[in-house]
Amino acid sequence: METTELDPILSQTLNAAKRAGLTLVIGNKNYSSWSMRPWLALTAFNIPFTEVKIALDQPDTQSRIADYSAAGRVPVLLAGEMTIWDSLAICEYVAEQFHDKHLWPQDVAARALARSVVAEMHSGFEALRTAMPMNIRARFHGKGRTPQAQADIGRICEIWEECLARFGHHQFLFGDFSIADAFYAPVVMRFRTYGVALAPALQAYCDRVLNHPAVARWVAEAEVEKETIPREDERYRD
Amino acid sequence: METTELDPILSQTLNAAKRAGLTLVIGNKNYSSWSMRPWLALTAFNIPFTEVKIALDQPDTQSRIADYSAAGRVPVLLAGEMTIWDSLAICEYVAEQFHDKHLWPQDVAARALARSVVAEMHSGFEALRTAMPMNIRARFHGKGRTPQAQADIGRICEIWEECLARFGHHQFLFGDFSIADAFYAPVVMRFRTYGVALAPALQAYCDRVLNHPAVARWVAEAEVEKETIPREDERYRD
Ligand SMILES: N[C@@H](CCC(=O)N[C@@H](CS)C(=O)NCC(=O)O)C(=O)O
Ligand SMILES: N[C@@H](CCC(=O)N[C@@H](CS)C(=O)NCC(=O)O)C(=O)O
Repeated sequence: METTELDPILSQTLNAAKRAGLTLVIGNKNYSSWSMRPWLALTAFNIPFTEVKIALDQPDTQSRIADYSAAGRVPVLLAGEMTIWDSLAICEYVAEQFHDKHLWPQDVAARALARSVVAEMHSGFEALRTAMPMNIRARFHGKGRTPQAQADIGRICEIWEECLARFGHHQFLFGDFSIADAFYAPVVMRFRTYGVALAPALQAYCDRVLNHPAVARWVAEAEVEKETIPREDERYRD
Repeated sequence: METTELDPILSQTLNAAKRAGLTLVIGNKNYSSWSMRPWLALTAFNIPFTEVKIALDQPDTQSRIADYSAAGRVPVLLAGEMTIWDSLAICEYVAEQFHDKHLWPQDVAARALARSVVAEMHSGFEALRTAMPMNIRARFHGKGRTPQAQADIGRICEIWEECLARFGHHQFLFGDFSIADAFYAPVVMRFRTYGVALAPALQAYCDRVLNHPAVARWVAEAEVEKETIPREDERYRD
């Protein structure tokens, strides 16, 4: 359901939802890897929210994002009177407000490792982002394998192996689905799009992520989106 | 005090400190903006830790960092058996473990805004990082003013104005010194090095940051460091 036209009735609905709870402003599901992360975290933990989707790279994209956030980027979370932007700040806010849902692993050491790998994702892997932008519908097998992207892939495999071995019990990175899986889900999508071959245990992890109901729903909704963006490979790095 | 040579006695000391508490592995104080952040957070809140400094861009830098972290970067926090890397993950871990010290603002809305501006710093401002790398001792007035760096400076001023007006009460970004100030302190250093002219209220904020005892100590220690790095403008973006 598109909730992008701010007609008066919708506007009222949104304002009511805003007063009552959470509104998440996102980009296209096919492309917006940063948006995917908090959306998955909210959805996987059954936290209700109103979704507002803004198509990226359209003439009015910037002005529409500016209605919500001066940082000029999606995702943005509206929580009552508050505006919280950036995927990681949103996830930390939600984890804190819904503390009993355990969006982060409960064990201190697991949580410290989860925050480390999430922060590494948040500020790193530029080569992978540039060479293999998220494009859920597309299949570009073999494309984008620059040496630096290969190095990023190697590092990500190392992270996944460590988390799965130490805390994952052959399930998600820290056992139960957590913010860490939400942060690496766009990488899982890229590995699928660009046909990155993985060791069986890591491919099995990717399959579990793809089969998670929240991920499956995001992907299904990406697949039916109509908008495309030109020069996506340059612009929508994640 | 340099604690970089792992001779047997030092090694024992470090192991004892590691068992007992916290060890923070950092880069050169003059250059390593990422290291500065958690170091300031720990120091400003009087949390004791052992410092290990690894000079960046030396032949053995990578192998020395690898002794602590597979991510290959500083800062790294050793906490008992745990290894926590990345400036933001370290700050979140410390804020959580020393909850009563309030490293984040106590008010929910202030904390949500603080996390937003910190996350924006953590994954953004690439143009500023590239054009104006941190170099505390140097004075390069006017250098690095690319249009994109100017846009980053404009956005940072907007962030500071908003935080100071809403929660700062003309003190630090959220009143008392917090992780948010620690994250923007390297920007304050850059504005000094590159001679960026600011509105009086923002210059006054920079002066308060420079006069904070933790910042003053880091700067004093940077000023007496002997190592320099070649091609620093390319390599040590923050
Ligand atoms: N660090 C931010 C990055 C957000 C970001 O770059 N979002 C992109 C889309 S995935 C965006 O909003 N671009 C707006 C535009 O290019 O007009 C986060 O984690 O939320
Ligand atoms: N996102 C990381 C970035 C850390 C980083 O890039 N550190 C640089 C020095 S400031 C580094 O360790 N470089 C190692 C090298 O280039 O050999 C963080 O926030 O800690």
